[in-house]
Amino acid sequence: MQLVQCVPNFSEGRRDAVIEKIIEPLDRFDVEVLDISPDPDHNRTDVTFVGEPEAVMEAALAIAMRAVEHIDMTEHEGEHPRMGAIDVVPFVPVRGISMDECVALAKRFAERFADETDVPTFLYEEAATRPDRENLADVRRGEFEGLREEIGSNPDREPDFGPSNIHETAGATAVGARFFLIAFNVNLGTDDLEVANEIARAVRHSSGGYRHVKAMGFDIADRGIVQVSMNMTDFRKSPLFRVFQSIEAEAARYGVSIIGSEIVGQVPMAVLVDIAEYFLRLEDFDAEQVLESRLLEAGA
Amino acid sequence: MQLVQCVPNFSEGRRDAVIEKIIEPLDRFDVEVLDISPDPDHNRTDVTFVGEPEAVMEAALAIAMRAVEHIDMTEHEGEHPRMGAIDVVPFVPVRGISMDECVALAKRFAERFADETDVPTFLYEEAATRPDRENLADVRRGEFEGLREEIGSNPDREPDFGPSNIHETAGATAVGARFFLIAFNVNLGTDDLEVANEIARAVRHSSGGYRHVKAMGFDIADRGIVQVSMNMTDFRKSPLFRVFQSIEAEAARYGVSIIGSEIVGQVPMAVLVDIAEYFLRLEDFDAEQVLESRLLEAGA
Repeated sequence: MQLVQCVPNFSEGRRDAVIEKIIEPLDRFDVEVLDISPDPDHNRTDVTFVGEPEAVMEAALAIAMRAVEHIDMTEHEGEHPRMGAIDVVPFVPVRGISMDECVALAKRFAERFADETDVPTFLYEEAATRPDRENLADVRRGEFEGLREEIGSNPDREPDFGPSNIHETAGATAVGARFFLIAFNVNLGTDDLEVANEIARAVRHSSGGYRHVKAMGFDIADRGIVQVSMNMTDFRKSPLFRVFQSIEAEAARYGVSIIGSEIVGQVPMAVLVDIAEYFLRLEDFDAEQVLESRLLEAGA
Repeated sequence: MQLVQCVPNFSEGRRDAVIEKIIEPLDRFDVEVLDISPDPDHNRTDVTFVGEPEAVMEAALAIAMRAVEHIDMTEHEGEHPRMGAIDVVPFVPVRGISMDECVALAKRFAERFADETDVPTFLYEEAATRPDRENLADVRRGEFEGLREEIGSNPDREPDFGPSNIHETAGATAVGARFFLIAFNVNLGTDDLEVANEIARAVRHSSGGYRHVKAMGFDIADRGIVQVSMNMTDFRKSPLFRVFQSIEAEAARYGVSIIGSEIVGQVPMAVLVDIAEYFLRLEDFDAEQVLESRLLEAGA
């Protein structure tokens, strides 16, 4: 069984009736909706669903079409950077599917979406076709209003699919593939924020640490402790167990212990398998040995 | 979602046509068959399936009825101890169900089975109604032929359900509830079997170790190593991670390292959750945070 997660973000987070219209087609597809988070300040809604690749692509397409139909970017305001009615559509491998396959899925989605809507569409992150589009912030530079000026004249803003001009109401869309994002926090037995900051600097990519870790120190005043708060952007290449052990070693320099950790939100079962394989030095363990995996495959 | 495993053993492991007849009803129930293992030497077949409690009970009952119909114990020979056509029926909690609930399920099964077949039925292990029936070997003492003599005259052999006399062709049946059995082996970086034996003695219940661990040393000649080979009979109370760490500490006394470990066959996802919680000191992790759990619940 292949499982893909998709997290379309569309540019409406205030008018319930419009949000309702946009997400309404989800029922028609064999996908499991994990989360729908409208944000009025951002004036933006994130929808998270998971399922087999074809069903996920069709569901994403249905939502994207509705967003194009119901959102007018010339009237949109919100705190979050955005360039389109359906702003970003990332595809995320969860189980039994490679990143390459998710990139191919993203490209098929992007081509169909651009063909059907005439919205210029850019591929980003793992699906990017040029290095300067790997970072979503670069693709979205200038937002809807800025891109409207540049597209068609600046060759760097040429879309991967669709016309070389902005869609008058729906703007432009970024379609990508990325790894599963895990929010992982490690709690330290001290109230000294500087210790958490030092450890965050040691493990995060931006200051010399692990390639796929973002980290910052965080004060948890009500518990009288501090935390290394992390986003793990590729748990296969920068795994939780390895980062955890680095934090433990760094904390020891300050005479501080790890008192606990937290995984916030959902994780693929592969995360647990990786942890068990590492700590028990498991040989030849197969995720299909987990009874629940077997049942899930049987039900599919 | 509640998941129960059932592993009925019936006394036919040679005649394919009879085995086929007995397992044939399984298709009719919403259970997932994990394994069917006929053993000609034992002249016995183990069937393993898993599902929600009611479906599992009905499927087990259907198999049990067929075994009573098709097996004649007066003509049965085989190496494995046995007292009935349907010899043992254990119910095993897998997910979202307590041992108490599995005991109740076993009792309901036993009562219905005895009512419908007039086969005397004994409750064993966690479902036992008296201490001298906790051990299956004690319940099955003397096997079919011995029990036939004693039942009705010896009050210790009075069944929990059904008549006080043997069923002339189907014998008697043991119905129980037990924890999930995990085969867990730890490989040592030495070819000295005595080291494996010493460590096995340190961790196993029978010689002073963990309550729910059976262990022995084992020579893996083709790899030039030895192994502590274990049956973990209650992974909640004597967990894999704790026993693993004890083995590591004991091995260090001999200057030996753990070079790997193996989980043989299937495990509930809870085993992985327990390991991750322990080694990462996870706070408030919920198995429902695993994406595959969510999908399994949604599909149920």
